[in-house]
Amino acid sequence: MLFLKARLLDIDLGNNGVIVNERDIVGTEYYPQDRVLVESSKGSFIGVLYTTKKMVNEGELGISRDIIEGIEDGEEVRLRHAPRPKSLKYIKKKMDGQVLKPYEIHTIVDEIVQEKLSNIELTSFIVSTYIHGMEMGEIVEMTKRMGETGERLQWERHPVVDVHSIGGVPGNKYALITVPIVASAGIVIPKTSSRAITSAAGTADVMEVLTRVDLDAQEMKRVVEATNGCLVWGGSVNLAPADDIIINVERPLSIDPQPQLLSSVMAKKIAAGINYTVIDIPVGSGTKIKNEREGYALARKFIELGERIGIDVECAITYGGQPIGRAVGPALEAREALMALEDPESAPKSLIEKSLSLAAILLELGGVAQIGSGVDVAKDILYSGKALEKFKEIVIEQGGGITNSEDVELGRYFEDIPSPKDGYVISVSNRGITDIAKEAGAPRDKKAGVLLHVKRGFKVNRGDTLYRLYSSSKERLKSAVKLARRIHPVRVEGMVIKRVNKF
Amino acid sequence: MLFLKARLLDIDLGNNGVIVNERDIVGTEYYPQDRVLVESSKGSFIGVLYTTKKMVNEGELGISRDIIEGIEDGEEVRLRHAPRPKSLKYIKKKMDGQVLKPYEIHTIVDEIVQEKLSNIELTSFIVSTYIHGMEMGEIVEMTKRMGETGERLQWERHPVVDVHSIGGVPGNKYALITVPIVASAGIVIPKTSSRAITSAAGTADVMEVLTRVDLDAQEMKRVVEATNGCLVWGGSVNLAPADDIIINVERPLSIDPQPQLLSSVMAKKIAAGINYTVIDIPVGSGTKIKNEREGYALARKFIELGERIGIDVECAITYGGQPIGRAVGPALEAREALMALEDPESAPKSLIEKSLSLAAILLELGGVAQIGSGVDVAKDILYSGKALEKFKEIVIEQGGGITNSEDVELGRYFEDIPSPKDGYVISVSNRGITDIAKEAGAPRDKKAGVLLHVKRGFKVNRGDTLYRLYSSSKERLKSAVKLARRIHPVRVEGMVIKRVNKF
Repeated sequence: MLFLKARLLDIDLGNNGVIVNERDIVGTEYYPQDRVLVESSKGSFIGVLYTTKKMVNEGELGISRDIIEGIEDGEEVRLRHAPRPKSLKYIKKKMDGQVLKPYEIHTIVDEIVQEKLSNIELTSFIVSTYIHGMEMGEIVEMTKRMGETGERLQWERHPVVDVHSIGGVPGNKYALITVPIVASAGIVIPKTSSRAITSAAGTADVMEVLTRVDLDAQEMKRVVEATNGCLVWGGSVNLAPADDIIINVERPLSIDPQPQLLSSVMAKKIAAGINYTVIDIPVGSGTKIKNEREGYALARKFIELGERIGIDVECAITYGGQPIGRAVGPALEAREALMALEDPESAPKSLIEKSLSLAAILLELGGVAQIGSGVDVAKDILYSGKALEKFKEIVIEQGGGITNSEDVELGRYFEDIPSPKDGYVISVSNRGITDIAKEAGAPRDKKAGVLLHVKRGFKVNRGDTLYRLYSSSKERLKSAVKLARRIHPVRVEGMVIKRVNKF
Repeated sequence: MLFLKARLLDIDLGNNGVIVNERDIVGTEYYPQDRVLVESSKGSFIGVLYTTKKMVNEGELGISRDIIEGIEDGEEVRLRHAPRPKSLKYIKKKMDGQVLKPYEIHTIVDEIVQEKLSNIELTSFIVSTYIHGMEMGEIVEMTKRMGETGERLQWERHPVVDVHSIGGVPGNKYALITVPIVASAGIVIPKTSSRAITSAAGTADVMEVLTRVDLDAQEMKRVVEATNGCLVWGGSVNLAPADDIIINVERPLSIDPQPQLLSSVMAKKIAAGINYTVIDIPVGSGTKIKNEREGYALARKFIELGERIGIDVECAITYGGQPIGRAVGPALEAREALMALEDPESAPKSLIEKSLSLAAILLELGGVAQIGSGVDVAKDILYSGKALEKFKEIVIEQGGGITNSEDVELGRYFEDIPSPKDGYVISVSNRGITDIAKEAGAPRDKKAGVLLHVKRGFKVNRGDTLYRLYSSSKERLKSAVKLARRIHPVRVEGMVIKRVNKF
């Protein structure tokens, strides 16, 4: 135990961080990043120990002014090791490849949400499940508990449906079309989306070009009650918050162990009060799922998990070998979605087809279309302009904004990338397009991105524009053009790929 | 990329931590604990991103005043994601159970030492090796690289010998007796030790009761040149520093994967310029090694690893079923070791026997005793008082101190714990004794600890003292007594353990 004098600071390092002079802990059993229990006359708390050379003097403990009410500068405080989190034992079981019992999984989820686990402990859990996997029974328990630990939405009308993409394909803005089609048919579809994590635009980023997306649970409810639908950012609704904490460990490792993928998606459905959901599983080079066989295996797991937690799941294995539609980047995608609602005939077929197919499944699941006739019903709603009207309602209810594609502003700097030769487009790289859009500034620069003029199979002549880059910054545009010239995300070849002659 | 204004702070969070207002990163691709590259007109550095609500304003980046020379308050700085460490790819290979190539292991070790790996990345590596293990070839590469990355000691005289315990048994102060015996025989033995990690006293803590132990490499060299030996804290010598960083992740998880155990021990031997070493492997309940078979398996690995890195290793599987000697806690152990040097006849047999056996192996390996006669030579040196004289020399050369057991001060508060009944001592729990000594204040309170009056097999009467607790704090003594009464670390039973009668 260390006896120190409180030194109140205007700092917040998260996890109730406290700061001690490094000379005070040399040779003791205390180390930076230990979880410590700090006791004062005004109360105690558990925090994380950081060290400083100078910020606080020897014998002092730097404490954020907010942590304990009424604590005074110079007051004596005691610091000792916090009790280890209960889940450490269970994490070690998983490290040793054992199957965890329900209450063991509940303890881990609870302590994740209560922020009782350090990065070291949390990483050990994630890496262990990555290596050893989890049985479906464990995934069910994890999903249920995660779904119970944050905000929970309840709805008066049923069924409540949802559509969710596991991601990996750029330009995937279908939700802006699918959601209003379904809502327009009278079905409740309270859609939450994420912002970009590694992509150039998450659905929430795209929608934010047109209207507010950071609604809390109450505001979201109001919008859905008024319009049947919404398109908001999941982050501010606080559904299944364990997921957000787990992602912070997965992101730097670029791993997404399947048990966490399954439970993170489905826990949010539990919390959002969803009855039916369609899971979009894009398959193809550069997506998360390499081939159809893997896609089917994952689909079966989603369906089984859904059955065991009481949510009806249907999966759509979709083509993800190149971007959906032609626009990649928040404003470009928002504009493309609005244009597709305004004039479906002129919109890219890949976008229309995907949006209609997913809507069709939901219309059939929701009981407003007979099996097999979902696409026709969806088409009617889209082509009649009803989907556009519904979308405008949603935008306005959320606090918007822009309801006309002509009002969407794109980056004021742009440059066209021409084809280096005559031939056919043989591939459009998901990864390459994403990287270039990000180099141009997306998703933070909402007006930055890539607009494809061609897709796979198009015939082009030398000098034809392959795609146009947009950015709000001249410098970033230049940097994106440079990257584009280096990685060639759109590949053009003549029909004769290589001549082999007799000599 | 974020453009921010530098705000210089007197804070040092380790890893070049920088602090941004949390509102500046909401909805961006930056997250707390990201590794970021900060560029200014005066230079750039890689650091870790923290957030604050208030400590810096929106648009500001809090930077420690020390990181960049000449940087000014208010200057514009750019923040972006740092390039990922090269080793992330190799860590993922290990996560997937693959065998790493030499340059892949070198990259990981180098980036650990350069502090380029976050806790998340480092934990992934440690947990993956814990689960998948490593082949001997990988361990060899890791050990060699770790041995090359810090301070390296070279010696004029050879052989240079060493003795090292893998730990796990309390009261293990044999090195204070073994080292002077060996040094007295003219053999160079530059012994470095650790402080307590989970125990009540590391050898460095014990030695520090008598003299300085935080010598740097130069000072250590001077002591060894003057006396043939030393007993210093490894932490200040900076041998194989990768190990110290790895331990920071292993400690909170209470794991010590065998590949790391092997390479951490042997890398320090490479760095210290050791030719021969004896590895003490205590076996028994409450130690790291549960049974002799496990002890042999580990011993064979140490020997093979030694062969492949050019260090002669001999292992001693030692009895570790109860504390060594009677004293547990820094001052108590220092006093017991000094008393054993002053009067070996009266010292606990377990301590004398272990110290002599390990010295004997080193005397034989070092060529000053014939095979089989090492114990006799060691005994002569100890019983003639030469070892005591040598020990005093070492203490004084290190900057000491105390050279007489009567001068060692113990905690001014103490309490005896009596036997609850007549009978025999059937066990003395390593874990229990350690926990009680720590509750009394060890190792930070050097005068705190446990002095056993009895060991396993002793006959006792009701009311006889089993052990005495010492502490410098009345309150901590009380708390240790309470713990002792609850866990009963010394168990006494009558010869008849249970009566079974015919009814």
